[in-house]
Amino acid sequence: MSAPAVPPATEPFYGAHQGGIITPAQKHTCFAAFDLVTASRSEVIALLQSWTIAAERLSRGQPAVAAADTQGPAADSGDVLELPPARLTITVGFGSGLFNQDGKDRFGLAAQRPAALVDMPAFPGDQLVAQWSGGDLSVQAGADDAQVAFHAVRLLAHLGEGTAQLRWVQNGFVADFGPNATVRNLMGFKDGTGNPAVADARLMDAHVWVGPEGPAWMQGGSYVLARRSRIALEHWDRMAVAFQEQTFGRQKRSGAPLGKKLETDPPDFDAMDADGNPLIPENAHVRLAHHLNNDGARILRRSYNYNNGANPVAERWPPWHQGLEYDAGLLFVCYQKDPRGGFIKIFTQMAKFDMMNQFVTNLSSSLFACPRGVQPGEYLGQHLFKPV
Amino acid sequence: MSAPAVPPATEPFYGAHQGGIITPAQKHTCFAAFDLVTASRSEVIALLQSWTIAAERLSRGQPAVAAADTQGPAADSGDVLELPPARLTITVGFGSGLFNQDGKDRFGLAAQRPAALVDMPAFPGDQLVAQWSGGDLSVQAGADDAQVAFHAVRLLAHLGEGTAQLRWVQNGFVADFGPNATVRNLMGFKDGTGNPAVADARLMDAHVWVGPEGPAWMQGGSYVLARRSRIALEHWDRMAVAFQEQTFGRQKRSGAPLGKKLETDPPDFDAMDADGNPLIPENAHVRLAHHLNNDGARILRRSYNYNNGANPVAERWPPWHQGLEYDAGLLFVCYQKDPRGGFIKIFTQMAKFDMMNQFVTNLSSSLFACPRGVQPGEYLGQHLFKPV
Repeated sequence: MSAPAVPPATEPFYGAHQGGIITPAQKHTCFAAFDLVTASRSEVIALLQSWTIAAERLSRGQPAVAAADTQGPAADSGDVLELPPARLTITVGFGSGLFNQDGKDRFGLAAQRPAALVDMPAFPGDQLVAQWSGGDLSVQAGADDAQVAFHAVRLLAHLGEGTAQLRWVQNGFVADFGPNATVRNLMGFKDGTGNPAVADARLMDAHVWVGPEGPAWMQGGSYVLARRSRIALEHWDRMAVAFQEQTFGRQKRSGAPLGKKLETDPPDFDAMDADGNPLIPENAHVRLAHHLNNDGARILRRSYNYNNGANPVAERWPPWHQGLEYDAGLLFVCYQKDPRGGFIKIFTQMAKFDMMNQFVTNLSSSLFACPRGVQPGEYLGQHLFKPV
Repeated sequence: MSAPAVPPATEPFYGAHQGGIITPAQKHTCFAAFDLVTASRSEVIALLQSWTIAAERLSRGQPAVAAADTQGPAADSGDVLELPPARLTITVGFGSGLFNQDGKDRFGLAAQRPAALVDMPAFPGDQLVAQWSGGDLSVQAGADDAQVAFHAVRLLAHLGEGTAQLRWVQNGFVADFGPNATVRNLMGFKDGTGNPAVADARLMDAHVWVGPEGPAWMQGGSYVLARRSRIALEHWDRMAVAFQEQTFGRQKRSGAPLGKKLETDPPDFDAMDADGNPLIPENAHVRLAHHLNNDGARILRRSYNYNNGANPVAERWPPWHQGLEYDAGLLFVCYQKDPRGGFIKIFTQMAKFDMMNQFVTNLSSSLFACPRGVQPGEYLGQHLFKPV
């Protein structure tokens, strides 16, 4: 048997697209955002160059910096020595602050800010915490091992010292439901059933990848939106399953749309019960989210559970309960060709009417332009800084 | 082939000892503490009875409550439907508050508080946060899947509503370094090398299990101490490996004591270098922690990495750095026969002299008495409430 071209548990780094977008979701993610603390364009370029080299090495299970290139202290924290790369992918994105900040063209890139990299609106119900939102750069590490994912962010942060400063970090995980199964999130429902199939290149071109309509450096790239959505699990767990199913518009166990048998059955939004009421309620999650009810708009959801422990809470209404509430929920992550025709299009109605909103509080909103993938010798974002 | 007596990925629930103590460490833990919010002894007993039934079911991958026993809303959150039990163990402990609180004998148990369940001292350097420390009851769930571990705590918390209120939750993880390898923690060093072998019943009886010196309900039980120790990874990563090795007294890559070849080689604390200085520094971690230097005192360490993201920080000395620091480090967990002859004995000197302290800030300290294991029909702590 000849040696495999790609070692096991390794995802390719080079390619037309960055890894971590249509890569089958790994079990763990460490999603970080950085603020640039330099005024120097060349320092930003040097940072992206060092991150590209490190990301490629890390994705092969190598230390972030080659031993021969180290000066001074340890080149790598060493906490993943002996560990396989665990399908590590590192996806880098550019926030609006890279292009302009408070009206200032910090790095001579203002004219190249894509129209699709909008300032995200705050939706009804959003409770956005500024320090957990935004950032000039994003790094999302995905791996089947939590230590490997965190290690990647930690090493890139280390390389960025003096140039980029951590702004926020959020870890996430999904459970292992098997190779072809849709995962259940903490609400106990299958999450991702309606996703466009990543194997369908036509769908990916239509909904995920930036095409000729975007700048050259974004062609083959995608826009990632991350929202930390706390779920009131304490309240959700008190609801009857029948109510939960009305909220989702799907059956809990099978994942099938209400009135259907299989998870993969398409929902029938016209189906009525004997009393003439819609089987899938007007304000059910699946109805409001579905592309048939959003002029065909679709996004690629790639969400993770998060669990930061628990926070003290004091309720402001009877019975004036005081205690802890879980600081847990969904690190909602989605990729799209253009957020204006993607998440923003879809969520505008959902924010107002989705029954699920009463159990979910969105605490952050962060949009990044993830540039096209790189070939050997290139660095991430090279075509933005040095247009060909 | 006959069916296996124990299904795969299942740890036994019944036995002389609770699971999760000498069970080979699972990849994830969810450690929670609860405050009792009832004054009723019978309600505490009812809680422990329902927890025992639920814990046994969960450890077999069953919903927490049998469907036939449910009233009203869903008996289980359903988020681990289809998942294997992932070697789930649930370890329950009793804090000092179960026995007396502010001098009050809340449940008629004050006379039965074991002398070993001491009020933990604050050690030099401790920066204890009250809301992350202590509690009347503890539940530590361990599983090879983060969702399974959290699910167990969540379901027990749900069952406890009105009787026990969450006080704190801390999640942890270790990476998969292979079946017989010592894991590396976030400092990049192997963690647990010096542990007494759990397969050695004599060592376990000597150092981990409570014997005839304790009350009957604790015989076969153990005392667990949990300390959340933030590690200043940003600073640690700036240190040369040689300095890190002096700090630990071990080599980073091999784990061998300084001056030795293999991880399993015993440290030679008398070895000198050519200049007559000890090869293992006087204030190295391994020297101060070793049982040979602590009158034979040993503990069973069962620690996890934790990673809660990052927190804003403003340094109070030049260069007045502001930014984020990782809220990450070690969820230090150890089991012992008696903390006075275990952790307290060992750490008294370490707290003063261990070089590692400059990189570690202990943020919490929580001691619980984990009662003996149960047999079918018994409930956890039964022999405390109803001495035979």
